[in-house]
Amino acid sequence: MERFIYADNAATTKISPAALEAMVRAAQENWGNPSSLYAHGQKAKEELEEAREKIASLIGAEAREIIFTSGGSEADNQALITGAALGKKSGKTRLVTSAFEHHAVLHTLENLEKEGFTVTRLSVGEKGVVEPETLKAALGDDVAMVSIMAVNNEIGTVQPIRELAAICRERGILFHTDAVQAVGHEPIDVKAWGVDLLSASAHKFHGPRGTGFLYVRRGVILKNLIFGEAQERGKRAGTENLPAIAGMAAALKGSLDTLEEDTAKLVALRDRLIRGLKEIPYSRLNGDPVRRNAGTVNFCFEGIEGESLLLLLDDKGVAASSGSACTSGSLDPSHVLLALGLPREVAHGSLRLSLSPEITEDDVDHIIASVKEIVSFLRSISPLWESLEKGEKKHLFAAHAE
Amino acid sequence: MERFIYADNAATTKISPAALEAMVRAAQENWGNPSSLYAHGQKAKEELEEAREKIASLIGAEAREIIFTSGGSEADNQALITGAALGKKSGKTRLVTSAFEHHAVLHTLENLEKEGFTVTRLSVGEKGVVEPETLKAALGDDVAMVSIMAVNNEIGTVQPIRELAAICRERGILFHTDAVQAVGHEPIDVKAWGVDLLSASAHKFHGPRGTGFLYVRRGVILKNLIFGEAQERGKRAGTENLPAIAGMAAALKGSLDTLEEDTAKLVALRDRLIRGLKEIPYSRLNGDPVRRNAGTVNFCFEGIEGESLLLLLDDKGVAASSGSACTSGSLDPSHVLLALGLPREVAHGSLRLSLSPEITEDDVDHIIASVKEIVSFLRSISPLWESLEKGEKKHLFAAHAE
Repeated sequence: MERFIYADNAATTKISPAALEAMVRAAQENWGNPSSLYAHGQKAKEELEEAREKIASLIGAEAREIIFTSGGSEADNQALITGAALGKKSGKTRLVTSAFEHHAVLHTLENLEKEGFTVTRLSVGEKGVVEPETLKAALGDDVAMVSIMAVNNEIGTVQPIRELAAICRERGILFHTDAVQAVGHEPIDVKAWGVDLLSASAHKFHGPRGTGFLYVRRGVILKNLIFGEAQERGKRAGTENLPAIAGMAAALKGSLDTLEEDTAKLVALRDRLIRGLKEIPYSRLNGDPVRRNAGTVNFCFEGIEGESLLLLLDDKGVAASSGSACTSGSLDPSHVLLALGLPREVAHGSLRLSLSPEITEDDVDHIIASVKEIVSFLRSISPLWESLEKGEKKHLFAAHAE
Repeated sequence: MERFIYADNAATTKISPAALEAMVRAAQENWGNPSSLYAHGQKAKEELEEAREKIASLIGAEAREIIFTSGGSEADNQALITGAALGKKSGKTRLVTSAFEHHAVLHTLENLEKEGFTVTRLSVGEKGVVEPETLKAALGDDVAMVSIMAVNNEIGTVQPIRELAAICRERGILFHTDAVQAVGHEPIDVKAWGVDLLSASAHKFHGPRGTGFLYVRRGVILKNLIFGEAQERGKRAGTENLPAIAGMAAALKGSLDTLEEDTAKLVALRDRLIRGLKEIPYSRLNGDPVRRNAGTVNFCFEGIEGESLLLLLDDKGVAASSGSACTSGSLDPSHVLLALGLPREVAHGSLRLSLSPEITEDDVDHIIASVKEIVSFLRSISPLWESLEKGEKKHLFAAHAE
């Protein structure tokens, strides 16, 4: 069998055996409609509420604070329209976010701008972190909600959510975090974090596709995104997707059960990968070297087009991405790298490798060797690189990464 | 093993073996992110587009006219906000629907009323059919969209969608149909029907939970409900739920492959059931006796509370509902039966039995015998029934149903 190293776990993950088993079991045995009165429906309702209890307890929430959605994008959309609607009632029409959020946040906010809200997009600095001082300076009485992601999906930088949430709480401003890259990957305690709303997506932590949840602190009045019957306490219509939800609960439990050992393993693999890739001349590790999550590595290589690099890596059995999966088919430069202050030509050429505990040291060494070989090859045929070598153009990066 | 007759297929259906197999196979083998460049992602993209082609061809649409959603409620919501947004641009702010649509339509419209739109709710008469003349009389230059369901979910009446759509097309008014109870249950050709938008839900035709689709006629500019990355041609953000979508395509094909024989079987079972239940004194078949779908039977029995009937039926191994599943836990009378002109006390007491081809004649006979026994028992302990028997109150129904 050909080698296949899946290093794109920030895009999606493979469903865990436990999650698949829970999903299939519910679909085959507990497929009643949870809103039905008869025993077959009530049994489904019980399993649904057990899953809610389990997920809530795994993030320090109460069961009634968990609303199931079709995934992270829906959860983000609903959180933001809730903040906007609540703000509008008290005359607050400004929403604050960062410049490098996921598009589920940024594009929802753009739509709210069309409806009359104003949006402040905080600078994230060259390291890709929203500093508490930056947030403080941007706040005012007109702010309805702040939404900052817990972990950036492209570069893996970890945001100081506790501090940011505390600043908002002091001022009575609603705080949402898109925690799609954090849930299942680090310990989360929503009460200790002090957030009002938090979005999660199952398929990012080895759960099924098409399900996720929104944590909604008790007392926050959620606005519907999807209207209809009274499922999810009237806040999200549609027959409950119990098979996927049962799978999500199993996946989250599985991820957290082995979190400590997995994180230790991932950090070692990640650092090995970073050391190896830094040996490539004129390379750059994107994002804060310390405040980053366990699995994600993002590099730029001067003179390299992201797309060519990815296709040649694919030939070597390595699945990786340039920016987020969702936009890796596009020719636009990454908005995340642009937010770090990288020039457009470089923002085109990033490589994101997001690891899972299934990856071995040998896999990492294969990735490093492959990237080195491909970067050398692509530079050897690049007119841009030739002019850099000849000194006709100036290098943007140092010859040796720090 | 205890007897279990599932007669609530309008609430949800059991996933078919073919759909489950397709879902599990995709989750295990083709779990790449369809937006990724590498082969593992592109293979998922291919299967996604194959599923889209298959579903489109099964309803007479083009692949590009199918947008995958998380289900019927989301599809309905997105269709309606699209109609509202398009109308608003040309100063048309009235939306026309029927009084007995699913709440995914009615509650979305109520929310649009809060945003300044006006809504006309057409009368459905005592037989539960929106007559073309009723629609014509309600239209005007201010109408942005008409939304009429294809088959009513509580009483199973079939609406004259071709005629209604033609009336709208003549007048340049957008026409949407919530076809959640029709897709997979009758032949559908969106072009012959002449609809602009059509909603469907997989779990109503033995597909997986948490997926559905919206048919959007080429040329209709869909408005996003969920903003984010550019999946579904930019119209529905969120990583594509390929496992569920593959399952939905398999389920739809399976349902349509055996549609003719299944329909013949269901009609025979349904008519046997209707004949049997009509023998109960002071009973009433709700909805047009002829213009109804193959699987749904809805009865009222004077003096009977729906909830007690359902719980006692459950004891006899029969899963049925009162009104829709989504509201069968509630104590409100059915808005559908109220729309037929039934008094509130009767609208409380309906029984919906929705059959599947797995049900046998013997099952139907068991249902009839069970309902007869339970209705007799409940009447024997009912003070209301006693006063009817004594002639202190007048019966609302005839002693013998027509």
